Amino acid sequence: MARIRLGMVGGGKDAFIGAVHRIAARLDDRYELVAGALSSTPEKARASGEALGLPRIYDDFKQMAIREARRKDGIEAVAIVTPNHMHFAAAREFLKRDIHVICDKPLTSTLADARKMVKAVEASKALFVLTHNYTGYPMVRHAREMVAGGEIGKIRVVQVEYPQDWLTVEQDFKQAEWRTDPARSGAGGSTGDIGTHAHNLARFITGLEVESLAADLDAFVPGRQVDDNGHVMLRFRGGAKGMLWCSQVAPGNENALRIRVYGETGGLEWAQEDPNYLWHTPFGEPKRLITRNGASAVEAAARVSRVPPGHPEGYLEGFANIYSDAAEAIIAHRNGRAPDDGVTYPTITDGWRGMQFIDACVRSSARDAAWVTLAD
Amino acid sequence: MARIRLGMVGGGKDAFIGAVHRIAARLDDRYELVAGALSSTPEKARASGEALGLPRIYDDFKQMAIREARRKDGIEAVAIVTPNHMHFAAAREFLKRDIHVICDKPLTSTLADARKMVKAVEASKALFVLTHNYTGYPMVRHAREMVAGGEIGKIRVVQVEYPQDWLTVEQDFKQAEWRTDPARSGAGGSTGDIGTHAHNLARFITGLEVESLAADLDAFVPGRQVDDNGHVMLRFRGGAKGMLWCSQVAPGNENALRIRVYGETGGLEWAQEDPNYLWHTPFGEPKRLITRNGASAVEAAARVSRVPPGHPEGYLEGFANIYSDAAEAIIAHRNGRAPDDGVTYPTITDGWRGMQFIDACVRSSARDAAWVTLAD
Amino acid sequence: MARIRLGMVGGGKDAFIGAVHRIAARLDDRYELVAGALSSTPEKARASGEALGLPRIYDDFKQMAIREARRKDGIEAVAIVTPNHMHFAAAREFLKRDIHVICDKPLTSTLADARKMVKAVEASKALFVLTHNYTGYPMVRHAREMVAGGEIGKIRVVQVEYPQDWLTVEQDFKQAEWRTDPARSGAGGSTGDIGTHAHNLARFITGLEVESLAADLDAFVPGRQVDDNGHVMLRFRGGAKGMLWCSQVAPGNENALRIRVYGETGGLEWAQEDPNYLWHTPFGEPKRLITRNGASAVEAAARVSRVPPGHPEGYLEGFANIYSDAAEAIIAHRNGRAPDDGVTYPTITDGWRGMQFIDACVRSSARDAAWVTLAD
Amino acid sequence: MARIRLGMVGGGKDAFIGAVHRIAARLDDRYELVAGALSSTPEKARASGEALGLPRIYDDFKQMAIREARRKDGIEAVAIVTPNHMHFAAAREFLKRDIHVICDKPLTSTLADARKMVKAVEASKALFVLTHNYTGYPMVRHAREMVAGGEIGKIRVVQVEYPQDWLTVEQDFKQAEWRTDPARSGAGGSTGDIGTHAHNLARFITGLEVESLAADLDAFVPGRQVDDNGHVMLRFRGGAKGMLWCSQVAPGNENALRIRVYGETGGLEWAQEDPNYLWHTPFGEPKRLITRNGASAVEAAARVSRVPPGHPEGYLEGFANIYSDAAEAIIAHRNGRAPDDGVTYPTITDGWRGMQFIDACVRSSARDAAWVTLAD
Repeated sequence: MARIRLGMVGGGKDAFIGAVHRIAARLDDRYELVAGALSSTPEKARASGEALGLPRIYDDFKQMAIREARRKDGIEAVAIVTPNHMHFAAAREFLKRDIHVICDKPLTSTLADARKMVKAVEASKALFVLTHNYTGYPMVRHAREMVAGGEIGKIRVVQVEYPQDWLTVEQDFKQAEWRTDPARSGAGGSTGDIGTHAHNLARFITGLEVESLAADLDAFVPGRQVDDNGHVMLRFRGGAKGMLWCSQVAPGNENALRIRVYGETGGLEWAQEDPNYLWHTPFGEPKRLITRNGASAVEAAARVSRVPPGHPEGYLEGFANIYSDAAEAIIAHRNGRAPDDGVTYPTITDGWRGMQFIDACVRSSARDAAWVTLAD
Repeated sequence: MARIRLGMVGGGKDAFIGAVHRIAARLDDRYELVAGALSSTPEKARASGEALGLPRIYDDFKQMAIREARRKDGIEAVAIVTPNHMHFAAAREFLKRDIHVICDKPLTSTLADARKMVKAVEASKALFVLTHNYTGYPMVRHAREMVAGGEIGKIRVVQVEYPQDWLTVEQDFKQAEWRTDPARSGAGGSTGDIGTHAHNLARFITGLEVESLAADLDAFVPGRQVDDNGHVMLRFRGGAKGMLWCSQVAPGNENALRIRVYGETGGLEWAQEDPNYLWHTPFGEPKRLITRNGASAVEAAARVSRVPPGHPEGYLEGFANIYSDAAEAIIAHRNGRAPDDGVTYPTITDGWRGMQFIDACVRSSARDAAWVTLAD
Repeated sequence: MARIRLGMVGGGKDAFIGAVHRIAARLDDRYELVAGALSSTPEKARASGEALGLPRIYDDFKQMAIREARRKDGIEAVAIVTPNHMHFAAAREFLKRDIHVICDKPLTSTLADARKMVKAVEASKALFVLTHNYTGYPMVRHAREMVAGGEIGKIRVVQVEYPQDWLTVEQDFKQAEWRTDPARSGAGGSTGDIGTHAHNLARFITGLEVESLAADLDAFVPGRQVDDNGHVMLRFRGGAKGMLWCSQVAPGNENALRIRVYGETGGLEWAQEDPNYLWHTPFGEPKRLITRNGASAVEAAARVSRVPPGHPEGYLEGFANIYSDAAEAIIAHRNGRAPDDGVTYPTITDGWRGMQFIDACVRSSARDAAWVTLAD
Repeated sequence: MARIRLGMVGGGKDAFIGAVHRIAARLDDRYELVAGALSSTPEKARASGEALGLPRIYDDFKQMAIREARRKDGIEAVAIVTPNHMHFAAAREFLKRDIHVICDKPLTSTLADARKMVKAVEASKALFVLTHNYTGYPMVRHAREMVAGGEIGKIRVVQVEYPQDWLTVEQDFKQAEWRTDPARSGAGGSTGDIGTHAHNLARFITGLEVESLAADLDAFVPGRQVDDNGHVMLRFRGGAKGMLWCSQVAPGNENALRIRVYGETGGLEWAQEDPNYLWHTPFGEPKRLITRNGASAVEAAARVSRVPPGHPEGYLEGFANIYSDAAEAIIAHRNGRAPDDGVTYPTITDGWRGMQFIDACVRSSARDAAWVTLAD
């Protein structure tokens, strides 16, 4: 089975997430990276491309889109891993040439761009995949299936949090710089960077959409222009309630995304830093610790596991599951058939919902944390 | 050293908290229970008193207050462990006779009663102790001392939660019955019963007071008249922010009070179900697990520990620490001297603040979870 | 119900375990401490007795035994909490006067004394209770009941360990002094002090007896006269195998007694430092976390629990369960009836088995860790 | 930088470890799999090779060795992932043609083969890498560096264990079949399959060699021809002592390799199922939790980490570290220079020591678990 020819925009030297995307694409041997415009300056783009031994190196993404679209062996998909404010401009060039787009989150840096992105996707024959990578973890898939199967009853309460600590003090390295610059990152700081992951994870597992929210956002570090801590109360359509906390100033928290969901007959709990386990807490019975690929693994989780239980998989494997499910979808698309059962990845809808979430948080906070409704 | 003569109001057969108070009073051998009006019906009061072998059994608390006050060997202190709506009527009788009162929380069932209780305490020569027992845990004392000593810097964020699951379904046993009856429990359900513990714990450890809050309260179980789940956003005086979650409908949570406090230079984390440990997370260094009475125990924690590290102490020992610190204070009061260094227990001020918290939660929730200010 | 009149031998100032026994006796209000010979020197015995406000203070245990036996209101039971080498001499005086004995472990400091103790108990009408206190923990009782009920099948493997770290360096305080002195402690150091607890716990939960063992004992700290680390391989009657590790030189371990038992169809795991939980691991199913007094608590555990699940009980409560079960047995003995169902406490047989264990370890180690058989 | 051309022997359909090797080789993009003899039957070899899209498929390893050695673009290294009894015959063919060998563990199925393998490696110019993959975990590297740097003082005690549960009952799938067949697996069952990992991990972290051991091995499942549970006491050169437990019949243990090392001034603890963390327990100070790539990461751990702390890496990443360090060594070898600092991988010496360990366990057990000395 031939590997999918992949290009990359962004992800040059010193970038964190570009390297992650490359490993994720490679892990299951479904992609071959053959072209790139890895930086916004041609010199860096060239140097980074050469360091990776890329067959085809471009000065900018537009040039790459034009030329690759003309080649018989041109790229079939492109990974866009730039700062947020460049997502749309880059994606547009590939979408209009029907090249599949795998785009980092959040969708864009502004709601206006997000609207345009939605239209561009609708107008294209290509697939659009958003790397809300945490939905790739097997036990997250397991949790979703349990909720969908009614195993914890109708959901009442969702507690989701995503604390980190790396911005506890002012930082001046590259990652920190653009992520705290509203012009490149968008109006949300921690809300956009990690709050969207928490919001998306809650939606993914519960199948519920947020109807309204009240958000109390702070920039605790002096001089910071975007929020570094967000407290959010959620009301879901249908009556469930939730709390969401995102923070980049919580010392001792490295990447502590965690969700707890409580229904009428039981609960579920999952933590990203201990991702191979899922707690199931049926009311009135002992807690059960479900393990990845272990006793009582469901098919939705087993199909995205590579090694036996007790052999931990981690962040890269979860990320790779998004890429590999996207590969399945791309192959199916190529062959004009439906993807295999169980194939799932975040779409433009998830991206749009995430932008709604950021926008609602920022609007609420500007109105002294009043309740605001999310647009549909 | 003679034991303090203690009476008890409430706590008859089938009561949970009365038995806890009795063990707590007995653990360090500082009290002797000599009198009681253990139930609101004379027959039950008599039967319960006899079952315990009480020397002096009374039909009701007023009779007890009057007679004991006249005896040379009358009680010096009384424990009030009735449902909330009876706290004030009982306490008043003893306070006006200058008998020390050890009262269960929350302070009263109404704000009006709470105001009267404050005045009654001010008018009395007796001490008033409120059993916010979780402040008796050694590692909670340790955390407070670390915050006060500046070890985590100025506080930015407080995350406190108190989920339980016992009211996930409708229950009809005695404990559930009065705790879900607003006439006996007060306007707050989970907010009053356990939210006040969470609120008080946050105040105790951080030394901060809540200025305003927004509370989204629910009664998820059909027919329930008081909240069984509360989502609360907090703003502390001085700029710190917080989230508080209390729930009695979260399956898998037995008594999962937990607090995390983040300052400019570090964090602290403590969980009631694992109470002998305190995480200290200085920014930029490995996490440290501080143990009760172990390496680096501070005096404030060591003085309320009984056994070496690794020999777990629990809920009853923490509760007993409130009683034993109260005993120190009572003896000091008797002898006209200041209590020993480190003696601390929740007071009428804590009780009043707790009532403010419940009232603010209920007011906010009634206004669609708008922000409300706490009275001073 | 009248409290049992209790005396105490040993447990004066600076003693650790005497204070523990007193709290354990007091916790459930089944005993009243009325007499004591708390030290081996009359002055200290007197001072310690006065500090506790004891009604009757004696210079030595023999005097106490003689006089108390003559009083109508004399003690009904005595707690012996001296260093090991004095257990027998003290116990003998009370046993021959048919006063019940509650004795600290290990039984004696020598096998010869142990033999005499067995005979003295056989010759007495009094009960003999050995405080292998870890068998008092509710979840240990739960585990035993599960094994007895066949819930993990025939046992194959037992892993038990008891590491501590307090003797990692030479110590010169009182506790360390006598516990590392073979004349007072016996030939076993860590094996006698804590290895016996591990051995007894394994026997209690599994119902199996050790047939033979090979022990590799070390005294790692220079100049130490007894072992401070012991590695032991066990063979149980019936074919199960085990490993036992005890150590007082394992930094980071405070009191880390832990047992894992594996049978043909499942496993159990319990740790003293987290005593309110029991893992049950049925083969081919998710792990289950059973909680004290919680969902699926068995009667054997519930009857020795005082507070609801999630309200942790600890070391003192577990110790008190031995005292309270002994109280039940003493009352039943007094009334000529069988004790209530479920009453259990370590007996002279357990003490004798423990001495066999120490002796076998020391013999094996002296023969270069060869296999040795335990006497019956 | 050109990828290393890799061949593979074994690892066809249904094999577990072959797929792991392929992912490990691919993860960091240092290898390209270009040839294979993936099964011992030509048909299966062909079918498996085609399923993977291998450029060059061979019927058997000898054919592959001969032909690849003749090609200009022939393989530079071969991964041998067959059952144990075929390791030597396959490795010999490649070693004598100076093709680097990456071989699964244990080294061989017999001591005689192991001796020949040692000579074959000595006679070859090629490198020999044994995939004791657990030494690839960053925190294992971290632990080794701490021990070497004297951070826990002279080592006294090593506790290492590797329990699994998959052979609790008789199994008849392929993995179980050959691993319980002494003709293919070797004389050791659990000792050979996983005990060698535990033994090697202890050697790697402590730098100590086992001098003698006593092993009590069992085959608990009726009819099983090799041990499925092993209890081993260890004596290290220099005076340290250890215990090693390996089991495949311990329900609830998936792949629970765990090591604890105690020195004169501190301890270390690491568990394979939670591999991103290392406990450091300096005596007399709070425990510290060191995280992969986090605060206080040492260079030896950071250089084999790919993602930031809190983003878990797992089994495949640890395995890939062996492959990537081997790649560094192969490139250095190709260029006639020394490998980069920090490059480390298990060698023929480790393989030989592992065979000594298995042999000693089996010999000891045959002599009723007597102490036996390991050959040098």
